[in-house]
This record gives sequence, structure tokens and C-alpha cells, in this order.
Amino acid sequence: MGSEQATSIALLLTGNELMTGDIVDSNSSMMANTLLDIGLPLRYKATVGDEMNLLVAELQRLSALHDVLIVNGGLGPTSDDLTAEALAAAAGCAVKQHPEALAHLQHLAATKGFALNAANLKQALLPDGVDIIANPVGTAVGFRMRLNECLVLCTPGVPSELRRMLDEQLVPLLRPFSRHGSEPLRSRLRVFGMGESGLQQSISDSFPDWPEALELGFRASLPLLEVKLQARGEQHRALLQTWRDKLIEHLGAHYVTDNQDSFADIVIRELVAQGQTITCAESCTGGLIASQLTAVSGASAAFEAGFVSYSNAIKSSLLQVSASDLQTEGAVSEVVVRQMLQGALRHSGADIGVAVSGIAGPQGGSDEKPVGLVWLAWGRANAIQARAFYLPTTRIRFQQLVAAMALDLVRRELLDLRAPPCYFKERAFKPS
Amino acid sequence: MGSEQATSIALLLTGNELMTGDIVDSNSSMMANTLLDIGLPLRYKATVGDEMNLLVAELQRLSALHDVLIVNGGLGPTSDDLTAEALAAAAGCAVKQHPEALAHLQHLAATKGFALNAANLKQALLPDGVDIIANPVGTAVGFRMRLNECLVLCTPGVPSELRRMLDEQLVPLLRPFSRHGSEPLRSRLRVFGMGESGLQQSISDSFPDWPEALELGFRASLPLLEVKLQARGEQHRALLQTWRDKLIEHLGAHYVTDNQDSFADIVIRELVAQGQTITCAESCTGGLIASQLTAVSGASAAFEAGFVSYSNAIKSSLLQVSASDLQTEGAVSEVVVRQMLQGALRHSGADIGVAVSGIAGPQGGSDEKPVGLVWLAWGRANAIQARAFYLPTTRIRFQQLVAAMALDLVRRELLDLRAPPCYFKERAFKPS
Repeated sequence: MGSEQATSIALLLTGNELMTGDIVDSNSSMMANTLLDIGLPLRYKATVGDEMNLLVAELQRLSALHDVLIVNGGLGPTSDDLTAEALAAAAGCAVKQHPEALAHLQHLAATKGFALNAANLKQALLPDGVDIIANPVGTAVGFRMRLNECLVLCTPGVPSELRRMLDEQLVPLLRPFSRHGSEPLRSRLRVFGMGESGLQQSISDSFPDWPEALELGFRASLPLLEVKLQARGEQHRALLQTWRDKLIEHLGAHYVTDNQDSFADIVIRELVAQGQTITCAESCTGGLIASQLTAVSGASAAFEAGFVSYSNAIKSSLLQVSASDLQTEGAVSEVVVRQMLQGALRHSGADIGVAVSGIAGPQGGSDEKPVGLVWLAWGRANAIQARAFYLPTTRIRFQQLVAAMALDLVRRELLDLRAPPCYFKERAFKPS
Repeated sequence: MGSEQATSIALLLTGNELMTGDIVDSNSSMMANTLLDIGLPLRYKATVGDEMNLLVAELQRLSALHDVLIVNGGLGPTSDDLTAEALAAAAGCAVKQHPEALAHLQHLAATKGFALNAANLKQALLPDGVDIIANPVGTAVGFRMRLNECLVLCTPGVPSELRRMLDEQLVPLLRPFSRHGSEPLRSRLRVFGMGESGLQQSISDSFPDWPEALELGFRASLPLLEVKLQARGEQHRALLQTWRDKLIEHLGAHYVTDNQDSFADIVIRELVAQGQTITCAESCTGGLIASQLTAVSGASAAFEAGFVSYSNAIKSSLLQVSASDLQTEGAVSEVVVRQMLQGALRHSGADIGVAVSGIAGPQGGSDEKPVGLVWLAWGRANAIQARAFYLPTTRIRFQQLVAAMALDLVRRELLDLRAPPCYFKERAFKPS
């Protein structure tokens, strides 16, 4: 604290439900995010069940290794909630009734109109000498003490209680541990149509002078890829900004957003801004594109109709696709996907649209038209483009990827990005 | 293994994204659940970032303490993927190109039509002497070796790849570590239309003689609720079976399945078995029902067409809903949803169908028709039923829940379950 050395923070999660897989732990992600925002990266995380010996051993081991140890869970009223007892054992002290914790319980019981039972009262039995960390919304107070020179903070496992305690109590307590200026400077860019290794290669090739102070990371955020730029220290703020801009330019039309918006969010927002409407004609995605668009609040301003034309017969009767073209070219063909889009635009009166026809598999492929082949058509009635892609993967991933491509093609059209759509370069379909 | 002592299994997760809170770890829950099913409880879990020294130290420490150590993550192509190198360092050996891993990469590249770059090739650099664990669906092969008498298994962080490897490779590898008879006897029933506390109350009320040896647990598996029955010891097998059957009878039409099938899986399978076809007309769900049906492999045998009629105009032009009924009754009304279904059945020629019209919100509600109100119509052309429900929640949850209800109503129809659909009792819509 104040030294050159960064604060080392560890997390110890406890609860049988974490070990049986009955619940997915979201608390540690919440804590890690909040701590990182005040410049305190989490260094280590251990998770154990409600097992006294193991808990005591981990409290001793981790407090000896780290500056701060946040314990989460095990503060409840039942006999398998062991945190207070384990911390007392690790510190070699007794548990005793803490007056402040008892007052909190009595206050809560009076306010909410319940009677304190023996189980509740156990929640006031804390290691001798701890300081209370207030829990305004639940019976389980938090508490803290020093153990092996480490600040040990015990927090409740209920996410909503932890959230409040984190923001109101822990952040002020922990902020002094952050070295001034050690909050990481971060920038996240979300990219579509490039894989992690391809993008890494392209960045290495194009920027041999990539600055060392700028950490580059990737994270799959399917169907997008997230690129993270990170630097430590105020002095790198301009550097981060410069290289972020360079990278965005390098990414070109592959760059989608620097926030958490989905493709559908972006497309709907842009449509509404431009006062335009969209429609879609879906075969292999079976309604997925429409459902993503209509998941966006306010979609009705830009979306009126979608067509799921799964069979050949319905492609003809619903979208007026020529039966003879279906016969001679097959449903997965340029001529059919163009006619699907024309039919959908005509029928809905929408300004812009997208149509897809492909082979999601696992059945239905052939040598000439393998599983993973898809034709997309997009654009306006007087300027329809079409293109084939080859995406051999599972059915579900194929559908997700095709829906993302469809929305990305519309995004490019709306933003007037004229680069040809070159997705996952190595995967362009080459008709045999 | 074979001794009286239970096998001690630890998990070591690695990845900066786990330490920054960028992602919520669902892999360990998946692994814990699967291991528990073969009688192997997880004892300890550690999570660290992409930090070489810490990784090596944890590999050494945990392999010395446990019988099995499953390492998850860090097998990717980029420079921050350190697992192979760290395990080599912990074992005091070198990494070298593994012929089997290389062959896997080459095979995958050839099949999927991409070129191997330097980053990909890194994925074949493994600690000397490891055995490969096949990854049929991704570039990252798994591998295993003995370290400190511990079996160390390295697995990919991508959930879908882990899922396959877990089921096909790890379960057979680890089953011998389970002591005979230590597998808990478990039964999972999946239920729709009842909440956890409501169901718990109903079970307490109906079964005062519930046996003590039979543990009852609940887990939200939205939109379904999972009910877990568990007993320990072979002697309780008959008891478990008896009470499972009693519970299923008690649940009636709310009982959906005892496996992981989705509603859409069940509906498509039943349609195919009965040689029937389905269609849907969607307003507030915007294509979600169609997309769920077509996510099922083989859906084309039972699904030809879906209609996303989001605006009033398209309800009339596409599904021939009466414009005057739309005017007088509004889009969210019994008469309109019935006409939507009639139009969809007529247009598609399907045997059975479902139509939905509701107010997903957050905008668009009124006192008379609040956000969360939805009308559903379902059945065959000569026997259409309709009903309103009130589900005040977020837009996304509302859409998910309505899609689940729609498919559940079709499931009940196909299985000839005649109980009136009584979902989440407290939430029936009472028109003012």
C-alpha cells in the first residue's frame, strides 16, 4: 500500500452448491469487474465446499500470500455456513456474539416483522475482534479482520446483498490499496468476420512497431471477437488512443462497435435514424434473424414482417420464387436467394432486406452443395447483392453465424461501407 | 483408486478473462455436474490468470495434493495461452511438436478449408510424453500426463468443445476412479409452468410422508424448472423409483421430460412420429418460436413455414386478419390471435399451429392491456383454442417465456394432455 509493489488480492469462495455445479458463480465476475475499475486486479481465486478443515487451511494459506483476501459465502444461518467459525479457527480466537451484528438482526427482524430464531442468532456469532461491514439488505453482516498481515473481508453469497456491500462498503475500504494511476486504461473493440489467430497474425504483420506498453488481448464473444487494448499508467493515455485509432482503421469494415451492442441493436438503431424499414426471408436460419431484430426494444419502428420459408413449396407460394428455378438451381442458389429477397421486399414494403438459404446440416449436404454452404442476398429492391459462404460447423453455430453475417451485411449497407464482405478469409466457398 | 479413500479431484481454471470478470465461468459447473453423476465430487477449484509463474506453481501444488487435476483453458493459439508450456515447466520437460496433435490440426484445416498459420501450429507444441485427448470439434486437442502421482488432464476452455470432450473422453477416463456404489442415485425431472416455491409448497402439502432418505432440490433451468431427487446407497434404488413416479403423477401436464431435450426437440420428435406438420404466426416473439423449432436437426420434416407479422398491416396482408377487428379489438386480442393462426394454417397447409400476440414492452402498454399481456391461440384449423396470460417481466424473458408456453401448448395438444394450461397460477390475466 503506497509501495511500488501492486496490491495482491485473492478471492476465496465457499459453498457446496459451487462444488456440485448446481449454481454458476457470477459473484466473482461481479467482484473482479468492480475491483478492476478501481485499479485492483484480482490475482487468485480459490473455491471450496463447506468443509471446515479445508476452509481453515485456505484462510491461512491465502492470507499469508496476499494483501487482501475477500471471502464470499458461508455467512448464512444454517449449520453448513462455516465462514465465521473457520476464520476464528484460522486466527486462533473464539467466536462470540457481536453486539453490532445482533443489533442489526434485531433491527431487521423488527422492520420486516419476523421473529429471530436460533438459526438467525448464529449470524451474530463472529470471530472475536472483527469489525462489521454493513449489509443493508440482508441478515448476514459482513466482517473484517487482519490475519497474517492480510486484510480479510467476509462477504455474503447472495448476489444482490454482495452488490450493495461491494459498492457501498468494499470499494471505499479498498480504494486506498490502489496505487495512484494504476487503474488500467482500457479500450475494447468488437470485430466480426475475423478469427482470433487470423487477426493476431494480421496485426503482427501490419504493426511490427506495436508498442510494448500496450497489451493486446482477444476474447471470443460469439459471433463477435473482442479485441482488448490495455495500458497501465496515465502517461500512456495518448498512446492508447493513437493505437486504438490505428487499429480501427486497420480493421476497416470488420470493426463493429466499441460497446456491448448486438448487431441487431446497431441495425435497428441505424434503421430508425435513417427512417427505414427492414424485412427478412429466412430458410436455414428459420426465424433467428427476425427474432434477433425483434428482441431489440423499439424494433417495431423499423421491422414489420419476416418470412420463414423453410420448404420449397412455401418459397414459391409465400415469396413467389420460381418453381422452375428451384427445380433446376436448387433452393441453395443465387437465383433463389435473390428471388426470396425480392418477394419479401415486395410483400412487406420494407426498404431494405436480407434473405438466406443454406444447408445447416447435419443432413442434407451433397458433394456439390455441402453442409455449411449458404447463399445470402441483401440490399434494396433495385440493388440486390448476393454471395455464397462456406461455414462447416455445427447446426446451431452455423445458424448463429449466418444470422450474424446477415445482420452485418445490412449494417455495412446502412453505413455505406463498400469493402467487399471478406469473412474468415480462408472460408470463402469455392464451387468445385 | 480402488482404495477406501475417495478420489480427490481438483480443477485449475486459467484465463485472464476469468480474473477480470469479463466472463462468467460456466465450465466448472458443467464439469462438476458431470463428474458428480459418475460419483466423483469436485473437492477444490483454483482460478488464475495467464501468468506463467503462478500457473506452474499451482500445477505443482495441486498435483501434489490431489489424485486428479483437470486444467481448463489456455490451449488456444495465442501467446497468452500458456497451459502446455506451464505443464512442461512443472514437469521439468520440454514442449515439442506432437505428431498426433499436428495430424489433428492438418486434418481439421483440410476438412474446413483453412490454412494453418504459425499461431495454429503452436497448438501442436505439447509437453514431451503427453497422451492426446481428442477434441473432435476444435483445433485445441486435450492432453494428459502424470505429475506427482496425479493424473493431470488439460482441456479446452471453449464450452462446446469441453462438453464433447467431457462426455466422450473424460468420463470414460475417470469412471474407474469412482468407488463402486458411490454414485449418488439421482433423478431429474423438468417441469414447466410452476415456480420453485409454489412447487415446494405443493409437494409439502401433498406428501407429508416424504421419505427422509430422499433429498429434494430445485434448480432454475429457464424456462423450465429442474426438480432433483437424490438418494445415497443402492438400498434406496426402489424408493427413488417409487417416489419419482408419484411425483410425476402429481405434476401432471406440468411434467415435461427427464432428459435435456428442449421443448422444440420434443415437439418436432412428436410431430415427426405422428406424421404431422406445424406452423406459427408470431407477433411479440418475432420469430423466436420458428427459430427454436428449426434449431432442431431434422425439423424440415415437420416445419415448412413461419410468419412474423409484427405490424397490423402485415397481419392483414399476410395472414388475412380482419382490419376492422384489428381496429376495434386491437392486435393483442383473442379474435386477432385466432385469425392469425387460421391464416397461418391456411397459408402453410400445416396440420397444427400456434399464434402469439402480446406486449413485450417496455413501451406499448396501457391500463387495459399492460406490458406482459399475451394472447396465444393453438391447435388445428377445426379446433383452435385461445387464452390470455400475464407475464410482467423484461422484454427478453417475456419473449422466452411466451415461446416456451407456445411450444408447451402444442406439446400438450400432441400428447393429448387435456388438463387446462394453468401456468404460474398467480399470474393468470384477469381483465379489469
